[in-house]
Amino acid sequence: METLKNRILAEGQAIGQEIIRVDSFLNHQIDAEFMYEIGEEFKKRFAGEEINKILTIEASGIAIAVCAAKFFGYPPVVFAKKDASGILTPGFYSSEAKSFTKGVVSTVKIAEKFLSSIDRILIIDDFLARGEAAFALCSLAEQAGAAVVGIGAVIEKGFQGGGDRLRKRGYRVESLAVIEKITGGKIIFKN
Amino acid sequence: METLKNRILAEGQAIGQEIIRVDSFLNHQIDAEFMYEIGEEFKKRFAGEEINKILTIEASGIAIAVCAAKFFGYPPVVFAKKDASGILTPGFYSSEAKSFTKGVVSTVKIAEKFLSSIDRILIIDDFLARGEAAFALCSLAEQAGAAVVGIGAVIEKGFQGGGDRLRKRGYRVESLAVIEKITGGKIIFKN
Repeated sequence: METLKNRILAEGQAIGQEIIRVDSFLNHQIDAEFMYEIGEEFKKRFAGEEINKILTIEASGIAIAVCAAKFFGYPPVVFAKKDASGILTPGFYSSEAKSFTKGVVSTVKIAEKFLSSIDRILIIDDFLARGEAAFALCSLAEQAGAAVVGIGAVIEKGFQGGGDRLRKRGYRVESLAVIEKITGGKIIFKN
Repeated sequence: METLKNRILAEGQAIGQEIIRVDSFLNHQIDAEFMYEIGEEFKKRFAGEEINKILTIEASGIAIAVCAAKFFGYPPVVFAKKDASGILTPGFYSSEAKSFTKGVVSTVKIAEKFLSSIDRILIIDDFLARGEAAFALCSLAEQAGAAVVGIGAVIEKGFQGGGDRLRKRGYRVESLAVIEKITGGKIIFKN
């Protein structure tokens, strides 16, 4: 998605060789109008797929998922909650995920009543790095017997391998911008 | 907002005398189409006001703020982050807020670069209970010299007094449903 790549180049901050900060439009300040363009692009990528639920994870994923919902005919959006306490909650599906940027292991959970075996799920998130959050969301969906139709990431950090690991496991992954590497403060996209 | 009140009565769960759970459309599963109706209603309530930024707080506030942005001509949406560590971060405005439902004190923070003295801010959140989060967001805006034009809450728990405390301090508060009390598992709205 060219507009996204241009935006990342113009506003993104490369920190070291592994972190990109895009908090002027995606992770802290949100450009809602641009989120709709992103949502529409996800619809194009997954056109023709039957999707009846969008799954995401708090916090930044929520804006993207809600904007995407508009283009998918408003299926319910469910956001997984992160719980650092590690305590299992009755009535919730749980899975573990380590945040690459924060270095923290969280329990990711969704109330059982919001997932079911008839669900055909699109997972949406802002970043795809090592794939920890995406694998956790897949696990939650599959614990409920739901089908994961695909995974849509706004920015994939290709060099961290999560996208490829998900693809190898048979998941369909659509990333709107794939970063090949960060070198000398410069962001290089994969063609 | 009648559709909201009906939805709260149909789907809300009263827990004890003080907690209402509306996680089927607002706090865990999100009805994105309904979030747009809510956003449009906020625009009606604040029609004629000059607003150039929408402020909210993670996580549930994000969906509402992004949907509301559409009706305000897409001003930037900034969501405050909660940090349980209590560590002050350079370059951030900080304020403290206690979550009524979770009983936890968080540091609420926004990067200084996303607030400025020319901002005319609408604060949006899902619940208004004791007003801790709203006061914290007002404080962040005011630390930057910005003007708080108003506060829009989806559900105000009137019996917890936060809305009235904010009004007494001179803030304009618009709540789309005000709950007077919860008694015997029944939710009673204020007229």
